Amino acid sequence: MSKLEMGMVGGGGDAMIGAVHRSAALMDGEIELVAGALSSSKEKALASGRDWELSDDRNYGSWQEMLESELDLPEEERIDFVSVVTPNHMHFEVAHAFVEAGFNVVLDKPMVHTLEQARSLIEAVEKSGVVFAVTYQYTGYPMVKQARYMVRRGDLGEIRKVIVEYSQDWLGAKAEDSGVKQAEWRTDPEKAGIAGAIGDIGSHAENLVSTVTGLEMYEICADLTSFVPGRQLDDDGNLLIRYGGGAKGVFIASQISTGEENNLNLRVYGTEGGLEWRQEEPNYLIFKPSKAPAEVLKRGNEYLCEAAKKASRLPPGHPEAFIEAFANIYSSVAATIRSKCNNHEPDGFEQDFPTVYDGAKGVHFIEKAVESSRSEEKWLDTR
Amino acid sequence: MSKLEMGMVGGGGDAMIGAVHRSAALMDGEIELVAGALSSSKEKALASGRDWELSDDRNYGSWQEMLESELDLPEEERIDFVSVVTPNHMHFEVAHAFVEAGFNVVLDKPMVHTLEQARSLIEAVEKSGVVFAVTYQYTGYPMVKQARYMVRRGDLGEIRKVIVEYSQDWLGAKAEDSGVKQAEWRTDPEKAGIAGAIGDIGSHAENLVSTVTGLEMYEICADLTSFVPGRQLDDDGNLLIRYGGGAKGVFIASQISTGEENNLNLRVYGTEGGLEWRQEEPNYLIFKPSKAPAEVLKRGNEYLCEAAKKASRLPPGHPEAFIEAFANIYSSVAATIRSKCNNHEPDGFEQDFPTVYDGAKGVHFIEKAVESSRSEEKWLDTR
Amino acid sequence: MSKLEMGMVGGGGDAMIGAVHRSAALMDGEIELVAGALSSSKEKALASGRDWELSDDRNYGSWQEMLESELDLPEEERIDFVSVVTPNHMHFEVAHAFVEAGFNVVLDKPMVHTLEQARSLIEAVEKSGVVFAVTYQYTGYPMVKQARYMVRRGDLGEIRKVIVEYSQDWLGAKAEDSGVKQAEWRTDPEKAGIAGAIGDIGSHAENLVSTVTGLEMYEICADLTSFVPGRQLDDDGNLLIRYGGGAKGVFIASQISTGEENNLNLRVYGTEGGLEWRQEEPNYLIFKPSKAPAEVLKRGNEYLCEAAKKASRLPPGHPEAFIEAFANIYSSVAATIRSKCNNHEPDGFEQDFPTVYDGAKGVHFIEKAVESSRSEEKWLDTR
Amino acid sequence: MSKLEMGMVGGGGDAMIGAVHRSAALMDGEIELVAGALSSSKEKALASGRDWELSDDRNYGSWQEMLESELDLPEEERIDFVSVVTPNHMHFEVAHAFVEAGFNVVLDKPMVHTLEQARSLIEAVEKSGVVFAVTYQYTGYPMVKQARYMVRRGDLGEIRKVIVEYSQDWLGAKAEDSGVKQAEWRTDPEKAGIAGAIGDIGSHAENLVSTVTGLEMYEICADLTSFVPGRQLDDDGNLLIRYGGGAKGVFIASQISTGEENNLNLRVYGTEGGLEWRQEEPNYLIFKPSKAPAEVLKRGNEYLCEAAKKASRLPPGHPEAFIEAFANIYSSVAATIRSKCNNHEPDGFEQDFPTVYDGAKGVHFIEKAVESSRSEEKWLDTR
Repeated sequence: MSKLEMGMVGGGGDAMIGAVHRSAALMDGEIELVAGALSSSKEKALASGRDWELSDDRNYGSWQEMLESELDLPEEERIDFVSVVTPNHMHFEVAHAFVEAGFNVVLDKPMVHTLEQARSLIEAVEKSGVVFAVTYQYTGYPMVKQARYMVRRGDLGEIRKVIVEYSQDWLGAKAEDSGVKQAEWRTDPEKAGIAGAIGDIGSHAENLVSTVTGLEMYEICADLTSFVPGRQLDDDGNLLIRYGGGAKGVFIASQISTGEENNLNLRVYGTEGGLEWRQEEPNYLIFKPSKAPAEVLKRGNEYLCEAAKKASRLPPGHPEAFIEAFANIYSSVAATIRSKCNNHEPDGFEQDFPTVYDGAKGVHFIEKAVESSRSEEKWLDTR
Repeated sequence: MSKLEMGMVGGGGDAMIGAVHRSAALMDGEIELVAGALSSSKEKALASGRDWELSDDRNYGSWQEMLESELDLPEEERIDFVSVVTPNHMHFEVAHAFVEAGFNVVLDKPMVHTLEQARSLIEAVEKSGVVFAVTYQYTGYPMVKQARYMVRRGDLGEIRKVIVEYSQDWLGAKAEDSGVKQAEWRTDPEKAGIAGAIGDIGSHAENLVSTVTGLEMYEICADLTSFVPGRQLDDDGNLLIRYGGGAKGVFIASQISTGEENNLNLRVYGTEGGLEWRQEEPNYLIFKPSKAPAEVLKRGNEYLCEAAKKASRLPPGHPEAFIEAFANIYSSVAATIRSKCNNHEPDGFEQDFPTVYDGAKGVHFIEKAVESSRSEEKWLDTR
Repeated sequence: MSKLEMGMVGGGGDAMIGAVHRSAALMDGEIELVAGALSSSKEKALASGRDWELSDDRNYGSWQEMLESELDLPEEERIDFVSVVTPNHMHFEVAHAFVEAGFNVVLDKPMVHTLEQARSLIEAVEKSGVVFAVTYQYTGYPMVKQARYMVRRGDLGEIRKVIVEYSQDWLGAKAEDSGVKQAEWRTDPEKAGIAGAIGDIGSHAENLVSTVTGLEMYEICADLTSFVPGRQLDDDGNLLIRYGGGAKGVFIASQISTGEENNLNLRVYGTEGGLEWRQEEPNYLIFKPSKAPAEVLKRGNEYLCEAAKKASRLPPGHPEAFIEAFANIYSSVAATIRSKCNNHEPDGFEQDFPTVYDGAKGVHFIEKAVESSRSEEKWLDTR
Repeated sequence: MSKLEMGMVGGGGDAMIGAVHRSAALMDGEIELVAGALSSSKEKALASGRDWELSDDRNYGSWQEMLESELDLPEEERIDFVSVVTPNHMHFEVAHAFVEAGFNVVLDKPMVHTLEQARSLIEAVEKSGVVFAVTYQYTGYPMVKQARYMVRRGDLGEIRKVIVEYSQDWLGAKAEDSGVKQAEWRTDPEKAGIAGAIGDIGSHAENLVSTVTGLEMYEICADLTSFVPGRQLDDDGNLLIRYGGGAKGVFIASQISTGEENNLNLRVYGTEGGLEWRQEEPNYLIFKPSKAPAEVLKRGNEYLCEAAKKASRLPPGHPEAFIEAFANIYSSVAATIRSKCNNHEPDGFEQDFPTVYDGAKGVHFIEKAVESSRSEEKWLDTR
């Protein structure tokens, strides 16, 4: 069977995330990148496509052109899926158009700007029946899958408390005024949406908690701040959370915590045990059973759950990291597309990627966090 | 010059904290324990005193007897100070009585039950002029003194964010019903006061932030929980905090976080750098300057500030720990008493211990945290 | 410019390392795998090639067939280089043949079985002028390049001591009798050569020290052991080393150290500072200057040397790991091949991969370690 | 029952170790320091004694005077034991004299200069029947006792490999020429004996391995170095070791490893599991069972062995450290003396301190290490 063919919208030039998507897609040898509209500027798009060695006829100047041209191809010659990795404000329009046209879609997070858009996208996906994934890549890590397995199996007992943190420092000064493109659009409400840090990284933290614990937020109390003078969106946010079932949560997202690079970490505490995972050392998961020694579970070992093992490429001690986690999403998406092509029902592993519903949950969270922060009410209902 | 003579109220029997106070007081060879009323039960008090080899004539059956008898002695034969290490509900009465009688006092935390008591105690201390210390022992650690020095010197720039956490798990099940004496009084409003975890350990966290940063809480938003069925006081508390000057805080105190032993940790983030300290590995302080490698400062080194060096007994790499931090409070108190006896003004190092004002701050915090938790208002003014 | 075309010899079936080479080669989008003779068994080779979606006409049943067929192609249609990832005993014959035929070669470690073969290979490479790399992948890690930079720049002063360790446990029991293919050939003198652990992983440790410090081994004293009953080759080896210039070394390689997964670590101590790097947390490098706080350097930061930055794909805190280190070798090799094609002199970054001379050093080390272990003489001259 | 009365020889002035012995002895409230000959200079001795508030009649100008005067006292008024904490060259004479006179003795390490002295001391101890301890304080740590328990119980299976390291950097420059008293005598063969680092800290490492594993050294191969120009004794030593039963060892002791403070660590690998303990984080013991998650055992927990629990003062997470480990030796010695006074046979816990036989083992090791280093023979028999 031949490789799946992928197109990409956005991601060219110096957009770090485009190269990551490409590496993640290519590394397992199951996907090749054959088409792209790699920038919103036609000129940059074409230049980036040449850099990435796209053939001229599928190196498009705009996503609309790409959509039309691919549709003009015979069905079996079209790209198998498109990855949309533009700044946030383009997500909805592009993804919606490709979904409606029947293309499978991989979309960067946060999925869209508003819950209304999210609902419209869900509708389109349900109607068209395409495969649709959101690249919450952190839940692609094997040890996050192991955490999910242990929490869901009940190893921790009844969950009482969740502490999730995502701290960075790269927006501690006004990078958006220094020509840092990544900073420019992320701090611009037109492009990033109503939220800054709470959208850009808070959505990852939300997805991490939701994926691992399955807990549903019932009420939240948010305090978002724009520390850097002149910045319009939040660059720091802290929340208290009340989950269904009585669990309590502390939620921290910050892009001004000096000295923190990409410190996403999760702790879950139940009646029988606690769990701790840190993204910067992603090959470890610490399990802290009540009244017994803490255990350090390590990626690649036989004692892990199937999902963790299938999401692993290397033996223990040969660390895997960020790009491999990302690649796990592509790999599951690819397997799901192949199954569908072969009229098989995708199995659990194949479907182990964040869906349009996960994406919508994130958008809902962002909206509510901003609403709560502006409110004088202590608790905002998020059900 | 001879050793200072110490008396102790409470701390006998299986009260862990009594032995800690004794070890901390004795270990530097400057203090001896000569008198005690080591339990509220006369019988247990006397038995404990015999175990600890108090002479019979100063092994008292009650604190009142101790106070009276010591007062009956010629002034130069009286104890130099008394340590009050009873359960919380006895703190005010005992400490107040000794202060009024002119004795120097070392008192366990939280200082008293109510802000009214705290004010009364402040008044008594100011009137009598005695030396008065509260054993917030964690701020006795050398690396906490170093953190204070660096924050106050401006190494972190302007402080934007503080995350403090004190997580334990020993009250995750209903220990108070299993004959654990430590749990019994700590979960009993009659003895512990209006707060559980937020009082017992939250007060330490409050003191740690206050000591290191000098920030003043302006507004708080608390969510306290009693997770264990049938428990009257909180066993978990999470707060959002707004400090004077615009810094934001996240504050976590829990005694039900399974697998956490005594996980007190502090992070402070400023415009120029971040700091991290963890009580369970207390010999390290991590400084994270902006755009430069993180630095691991270690106790015992020449490059530390004077206060950190003076609070150290051993060369680098020969770890010091909890009892030594505790001993630093006794050592400073002892030096202050000696200076006063010699009519010297105590210097900065001598006076480097938590005072009655620090104690009052803690009581204020506890009251406000409980009040906020009960309120529907988002922000409670704490000025 | 189009992608470089790669062929592979060996690596099919369940050989972990083949998939790693493939992922490493593909992930940066500069190389595609177009030809292969993926196993020494024709049947397995062809099946593996189909799995990996090689076109039928370049899915070869043997490396000889591949060599001949590729030579039959017009020069511009041949593979740009071949990766040889067979068990050790095939290295020499295959690599030598491809080199002689004028193909660029990437060869797995240890390079060959004997120093004689190594010399012959050097001669062939020098004669043919091809690009030749040995995949000592650990020196592809950015923080190893940073360590090299700091040692060579003199940050540590004069080097006095080197401690290198490579501990694993996967051969602690007799895996070669349980159908573990990886274990079978590695413990078989016919296929692995004269050395077990000291060859398989000791050679990595040797290359790591040599790359970072540039120190030359003058004398060694080895004690190799076969702990597992019935095993013919060493599964544990410890050495004392005397380097030129007076530095001393401790060298540990073990495959029976229960609980160690892939614990390669290096420490270098000089008159002015020490360095520490651990492969299992490869994004950090600890610098310990004399009388100053230790510094934790982290991958992806601006403060690192050019070679470390160029070998990095992601921002700080987004960890990179084993496959990315591997990919750095492929990336440098690819850049060097392109430069040569364009008649440019490859620059320092392009040529930053282990060469045939590094490979020969490893073979020399292995021979000497085995010789020393068998000798009653304390010190074996290795100059 | 009253406190045990202790005398001290040496340890006054700025000798760090005297204060440590005092703190360790005092902190549990069972011992008081009543007599001393605190320096070899009469003047310094008396001044130090006054500093430490010894009564004038037992503040002696020399150890001979102390011995005579104490002997002149009625038996029940004499000190219960003497601690000898002088530089090494005084150990034998002083300890021997006190033992012969029937005093219980606590002696610093390394015990004496020569094996001949060691044998003579053993003889004297056996003849007099006194309690005699050597302050190898590191084996006083609770988690070392736990390690011993687990190895001896067979949790690791058959032991195959031991890696012990004790790295410091405080003699990396010529401190003995800068007025550092600690450095002066430790680098002077007259006072320190035939060995530098290998005696001062290597003896601790030897005791640690011996205590935890019970393994007997059969053969050693040593390479000792004096890195600092003009230094007479070794400041760095590395050894390969063959133990009885076939286990192999790597042994590292260094005082010139820049950036290492007091990095004593031990790893033991058996057929079923591995163990790791690090002195700088002494409250943890890592157990690495084969094919299962690593476990982090923490001091203070119920799941530990009795010896580890009895050697602990504080609950989990309230760290204990160096002085407490030291105090455990004093505490066991005190309990043993009390038992003997009461004609009870001391139990296992009471006798859990390093003995004169352990001390002799250390002296033997030092002699053999120096001999091996000077020899051209690879293996020196040490049985």
